[in-house]
Amino acid sequence: MKKAVVLYSGGLDSTTCVAIAKSQGYQVYALSFSYGQRHSVELEKAREFAPKLGIAQHLVVNMDMRQIGGSALTADIDVPGADSEDSHIPVTYVPARNSIFLSYALAWAEVLQSFDIFIGVNAVDYSGYPDCRPEFIEAFTRMANLATKAGVEQQGAYTIHSPLIHMSKAEIICAGTGLGINYALTHSCYDPDSQGRACGRCDSCVLRLKGFYAAGLEDPVEYQPRTGE
Amino acid sequence: MKKAVVLYSGGLDSTTCVAIAKSQGYQVYALSFSYGQRHSVELEKAREFAPKLGIAQHLVVNMDMRQIGGSALTADIDVPGADSEDSHIPVTYVPARNSIFLSYALAWAEVLQSFDIFIGVNAVDYSGYPDCRPEFIEAFTRMANLATKAGVEQQGAYTIHSPLIHMSKAEIICAGTGLGINYALTHSCYDPDSQGRACGRCDSCVLRLKGFYAAGLEDPVEYQPRTGE
Repeated sequence: MKKAVVLYSGGLDSTTCVAIAKSQGYQVYALSFSYGQRHSVELEKAREFAPKLGIAQHLVVNMDMRQIGGSALTADIDVPGADSEDSHIPVTYVPARNSIFLSYALAWAEVLQSFDIFIGVNAVDYSGYPDCRPEFIEAFTRMANLATKAGVEQQGAYTIHSPLIHMSKAEIICAGTGLGINYALTHSCYDPDSQGRACGRCDSCVLRLKGFYAAGLEDPVEYQPRTGE
Repeated sequence: MKKAVVLYSGGLDSTTCVAIAKSQGYQVYALSFSYGQRHSVELEKAREFAPKLGIAQHLVVNMDMRQIGGSALTADIDVPGADSEDSHIPVTYVPARNSIFLSYALAWAEVLQSFDIFIGVNAVDYSGYPDCRPEFIEAFTRMANLATKAGVEQQGAYTIHSPLIHMSKAEIICAGTGLGINYALTHSCYDPDSQGRACGRCDSCVLRLKGFYAAGLEDPVEYQPRTGE
């Protein structure tokens, strides 16, 4: 059985990626990072959900990105609501995050003798992150095949799969639902409360809610009750 | 003053890189990794030497590569002598290491608003590591300029400097000596003894000793006494 390394955050997109990789016949090795996320609930959820996804292994790598800073997700910067963005690229952008995550996935793939890496990046509803675009994935693939022993010995062997890249959030949700995903076992919110309930207002929640609405489906995760507005 | 991030291991090549970056007018931000090296003396030496190099900051990032394994430098595989290699790429190769290190350097550079990264890779005496070749550096640079907010906003702004890439070890030592480096403040050995003395037999020691010999200079670091052979 072919092995694939799938970048897995416990979120909607990466969970859909796990299901897609499985549907293509891969044995899935899910890779998460403890990188100093301000809200550790994301990682807790990933640890809780992963064993329910029928995968071969879930590895959580420790890598402290707070030492670098520069992002609302790792440094002490407020996470804004989706409508308060005034820059093309939001403050939740983490410098070079996908380069670091994919490089680590490449290292693990090489050790596992896998040549397939899945990443749930999306260039449609993508919030302006530069490292979610097809041209980035293509440049990374080229680099990967020059960077590694396996890439050199079997020229061009590595493929970075980004099956969601041209899909809308609604299409992703439809595809995942068709593959039997229970989206209650996913977490997207940048700013959950102490009970882990989604805020419904951050960039990530708004994209998610719009996606479920457009797909004509109900989001099964729990949201914080709204105070009178 | 322009800032540069320099990948710094405490070794001969990366220390020479620090000196070259300084000689080109950069303020140096040295980046080291605690990645689960089997011999922590390398990192101890880097911490000890860095403050003596006249740099702006030394950052040591924690990132456990032992979780991935696959290399004699991080897993429980014997480090061979230089003459026992039977593969083109040695067991001391760490999967995707330079991709991971450069991605991290890219993240820090973006936060520092620096567009220059120095790495002391070398393709002449290079031991067969695929991620030490010019084609890898070129592919990484292209990726870096697509991966980042700063790269997108200022197209092609990032430069990965690899000033040693076409130099022999002897030429590197001559260049560094000319820039005033005290090579006693560097450490290369993969297999030092409990007192931190170099073994004189591993791949890295043999390259270093040959370099000093070819440069007509004496290596000032301390080696383990040889037992009768």
